Amino acid sequence: MKLATLRNGHRDGSLIVVRDDGAVYADAGTIAPSLQAALDDWDACEPQLRALAADIDAGRIATLPVDVTALAAPLPRAFEWVDGSAYVNHIVLVRKARNAEPPETLYTDPLVYQGASGVMLGAREPIALADAAWGCDLEAEVCVILGDVPQGTTKEDAAKYVRLVCLVNDVTLRNLVPNELAKGFGFFQSKPATGFSPFVVTPDALGAAWSDGRLALPLRSYRNGALVGDPNAGPEMHFSFYELIAHITRTRAFTAGTLLGSGTVSNADRARGYSCIAEKRALETIDGGKPVTPFLTPGESVAIEMLDADGRSIFGRIEQTVVATTQPAPGKRARAAPAE
Amino acid sequence: MKLATLRNGHRDGSLIVVRDDGAVYADAGTIAPSLQAALDDWDACEPQLRALAADIDAGRIATLPVDVTALAAPLPRAFEWVDGSAYVNHIVLVRKARNAEPPETLYTDPLVYQGASGVMLGAREPIALADAAWGCDLEAEVCVILGDVPQGTTKEDAAKYVRLVCLVNDVTLRNLVPNELAKGFGFFQSKPATGFSPFVVTPDALGAAWSDGRLALPLRSYRNGALVGDPNAGPEMHFSFYELIAHITRTRAFTAGTLLGSGTVSNADRARGYSCIAEKRALETIDGGKPVTPFLTPGESVAIEMLDADGRSIFGRIEQTVVATTQPAPGKRARAAPAE
Repeated sequence: MKLATLRNGHRDGSLIVVRDDGAVYADAGTIAPSLQAALDDWDACEPQLRALAADIDAGRIATLPVDVTALAAPLPRAFEWVDGSAYVNHIVLVRKARNAEPPETLYTDPLVYQGASGVMLGAREPIALADAAWGCDLEAEVCVILGDVPQGTTKEDAAKYVRLVCLVNDVTLRNLVPNELAKGFGFFQSKPATGFSPFVVTPDALGAAWSDGRLALPLRSYRNGALVGDPNAGPEMHFSFYELIAHITRTRAFTAGTLLGSGTVSNADRARGYSCIAEKRALETIDGGKPVTPFLTPGESVAIEMLDADGRSIFGRIEQTVVATTQPAPGKRARAAPAE
Repeated sequence: MKLATLRNGHRDGSLIVVRDDGAVYADAGTIAPSLQAALDDWDACEPQLRALAADIDAGRIATLPVDVTALAAPLPRAFEWVDGSAYVNHIVLVRKARNAEPPETLYTDPLVYQGASGVMLGAREPIALADAAWGCDLEAEVCVILGDVPQGTTKEDAAKYVRLVCLVNDVTLRNLVPNELAKGFGFFQSKPATGFSPFVVTPDALGAAWSDGRLALPLRSYRNGALVGDPNAGPEMHFSFYELIAHITRTRAFTAGTLLGSGTVSNADRARGYSCIAEKRALETIDGGKPVTPFLTPGESVAIEMLDADGRSIFGRIEQTVVATTQPAPGKRARAAPAE
C-alpha cells in the first residue's frame, strides 16, 4: 500500500491512497483526515485503507492524477524525528578525513540524534538557505514511520511497530556542525528542515527487499541531474531499524507517527558513489589532502530516489532546489571546517 | 489567562480555561478541542478564550472543580521540544566538578539541545525508571510555548511569538549522559519524558515578573517534601527567551506549539539551593572531593512550583513520584560518572 499527503490548506494536509505505480490517487478523507490521524488509529484505519487501495488497483473507483508538486511531506509536522547513523562506512570516512578516531563503541552502540520535527518539507519544496557559507549538503536516507512503541522494546519485537517506509533528505549545514558538536549538545542549527519522498509504503509493498529491518536496494542520489551515488541501503546498514528501535526505547516510549532515519546510506565500495557531499570531500581529503567538491549553492538541485527490481520508483522522487533566502543570519558567520 | 489540558481518552486531551486561583475550570471545547488546536489558530481563539476566562472570573458561567490528577501535560504530544541551558552558573558548576572548562563561547553562544516531544507527562504522572543505576535527576525550568516563528527572527521581534509560559521537570538520567556526550550527538537515552506544570498562563498574567523575556520569580523545588532550592529564574538567566528564539531560528522556522525551555534554573548564591541534584553533587565534589547526595530512587518524589508576589501558585505544582518499571534495559549497564 502506498500513501501520501496532499496539501489542502490545513497544517496536516489530507491523506490520499496512491496506486502502486504512483500515477493516480483517491482521497482517503472518509477513513482518516490525515496520515497522523490514520497512524493514531492504525488498527482500525489500515484495513479500510487497504480496501481502498484494492479498489484503486482494480479500477473500481474514480481516481485523480498525482501531481507531486501538490504533495506535502507525509507528516508535514511530526511529533518526533529520530535519526540514526547506522552505516559505519560513513562514520569512519568522515572522521578519517579529519584525523579523528571513530567512537570506541562504533560497532556496539548506535549513534542517533534527536532531530527537528515541527516543519517537514514535501518532495518538491525548496531548501531555503540564508548563507551559502553554511555549507549546505544533502543526506540521502531510508526512514521508517512507527506506531506507538513501548519503552523497553526488543529488536526481536520491533518489526510490528514499523508502519511505513519512505526516503528522506536530511539536509545538513556542514560548516555549522563543528562548533555545535564542540559545544557537546549535538546538532541544532546545523540541521534545518528535512525533505521527504512523495510516497510512503507499507513494508509488505517492498517484497523481499525489506528483510530483517533493512531495505536492500540501491538508493540513488543526483546533483543537478547527474547521478552521484547508488549505494545499496541493505547489507552495510550495521544496525538494522529493529536494533535502532531497541536502542531508542531503552529509557522511554514513542508515540505513533515517530520518524526514525537510517543515517546517510554509504557503501565501502567507492564505485557506489555517495549519498552526501561530506563523504566525497572526505575521500578527496584522504586522497589529496584537501576537499575539492563544493557544497550546494542556491540554484542547485538534489534528487533522491529508489527503484525496485523492475526499475520502478518506489517512493517517488525527492527533488529539491536550493534557494537563497533574503535574511542572512544576524551577527554570525560560519567557520569553514571539516564536518561529520 | 490560565489554561490546562484535561485527559479525555484522546491523545491531545481537551482544552479547559482555569480560574486565576487554579480552583475551578470551564470546558473550552466549543472554541478549540485541544491546546494544540488553539495554538494552530491563536488569533481567532485567543479572544474567545479570554472572554471565557472573564466569564469564569465574574462567576457568570458554571464551573467544575479542578482535579490536578486528571490533567495531562498541556501538550501531551508536542511537535518540538527545544531546551536551552541559559543559566551560566549551572554550566560552570557541573563542569568545574569534573575539572572541565566551560565552552569558550559560554557567554556569547547559547547552548540548546533538541529534546523528545512525542510523549509528555502531566503534573502528577510518575517518572518510570527501569534502572536506578541510571542516576535519575530532576531539572526545574521555566518553559515558553511558541506560535509559528519564522526563520531569522531577531530577539527584538521575538516577544510576539511567546504564547504561553509554564514550568517543566526536564528529567535527566545523569549516569547515561557522559557516554552519550562522548559519542558527540547529544542527549538521547539520558532524557526520558519531561514533566509539565498543571497550568500554562499567558505572559500578561505574570505581570511585572515577566520582563524582557525572563521570569523574575523564585522557582521552588522539593525532594520528598523538603525544599531543596528556590533560585530566582530572572536575573541570572544569561540568555533571555528572546535571545534563545533568535538563536534557534537562525537556520529554520518553528511550528505553533513548539516548547522552548530555559535550562535548569540556577543562582550563584549557594543559599538559594538547587534545581537539580547534579548541581548539589557538583558543589559537594568541589568542596569535599566527592558527591554525597544520591540521585532519585523509586518511591521518592519531586515537586516544582512558582509562587507569585502574594504567595499564590501560578502554574500549579508539578509533583511526580519515581516508580520502578518491571523491564530493565536489556544487556546494558550504566557507568557511574559525573554528568552535566
